[in-house]
Amino acid sequence: MPRVSTDQLAARRQHILDGARRCFAAHGYEGATVRRLEQSTGLSRGAIFHYFRDKDALFLALAEQDARRMADVVAEQGLVQVMRDLLGTARGEGTDGAAEADGASDRSWLGTRLEVSRRLRTDPDFRQRWQAHSAELTAATRERLERQAAAGALRDDVPVPVLAQYLELVLEGLVSHLAMGLPADALDGVLDLVEQSVRTLPR
Amino acid sequence: MPRVSTDQLAARRQHILDGARRCFAAHGYEGATVRRLEQSTGLSRGAIFHYFRDKDALFLALAEQDARRMADVVAEQGLVQVMRDLLGTARGEGTDGAAEADGASDRSWLGTRLEVSRRLRTDPDFRQRWQAHSAELTAATRERLERQAAAGALRDDVPVPVLAQYLELVLEGLVSHLAMGLPADALDGVLDLVEQSVRTLPR
Repeated sequence: MPRVSTDQLAARRQHILDGARRCFAAHGYEGATVRRLEQSTGLSRGAIFHYFRDKDALFLALAEQDARRMADVVAEQGLVQVMRDLLGTARGEGTDGAAEADGASDRSWLGTRLEVSRRLRTDPDFRQRWQAHSAELTAATRERLERQAAAGALRDDVPVPVLAQYLELVLEGLVSHLAMGLPADALDGVLDLVEQSVRTLPR
Repeated sequence: MPRVSTDQLAARRQHILDGARRCFAAHGYEGATVRRLEQSTGLSRGAIFHYFRDKDALFLALAEQDARRMADVVAEQGLVQVMRDLLGTARGEGTDGAAEADGASDRSWLGTRLEVSRRLRTDPDFRQRWQAHSAELTAATRERLERQAAAGALRDDVPVPVLAQYLELVLEGLVSHLAMGLPADALDGVLDLVEQSVRTLPR
């Protein structure tokens, strides 16, 4: 068997994650059968499960990757921007003029996020394992808010942890709303209001 | 068979609904077996299904009654008050110093609300049938906001439908948050912020 470099291993692993993400988004967690995972990755089950122990491990790796990306966007652009991206995603728009491939990956991100929400509700073991990732997002949100507060951009009559929890609650509402297939067109104004309500009050 | 008055029929029907609500809250929709429904209502299956075609019809009647009560609270006290009640409910408090029996019924209300959310996500037929009730809540929310706007109590730089959708999004986030069993203690400050953000801006 030929030696494979670490880079090649990482690339193969990422290739599987990208295919699996499309598959979970199209068919949901239950519907993403091993056969469909083979089709969407173009690899055999042997190859897939060489990298991931089972379907659950594959889903968790995917959800972790998405959570990390989300924390990155939060750190750079804030949680309201995450919500705006999510809204664009639900409408089938790419974000930041992203290419078609990226747009598709954004839409599948919503699928993963919804599955995570569903399992948080129904699976106490999963909730336990997921705590570290949700703590990461909370930390990123708080850190960004602290930086904004230091720059005088935030209202100072509400403590930062309350502002952070407020934004997370709205995010959860948005995910639910989109999950129920409710209309998304009037929500830009809502997100403007949310953004404004954490900012410095006008004098 | 003795003749039964309309009042007695209505009282019997309500007795079944109250027992069923406790049963759904304790065991969830799936876990509320006919046997458990008999125990919680103190009536035979024959008597129960004389009033309601099947378990689904019973659940729907319950959810409709709760939605109507919720619309009443919204009309009188606003959607933020509904959220405050929900929060107290999740903590196991009665609302407005209600007696123990009422407190228990409040807690079961959360159970019904969560089951409705779950089925809205997973059951397109249910979503269809439920639309009238969610429209009722939206109408009650908008009407109250319109009245408040006319009284000069609301900010006037954001249209009322946007404010209404904002409040509904936060409510959905709150339901999700509580459904995941996440901590509820820091949320009073969040609801204060939500209430404040729809009010007239301070000058």
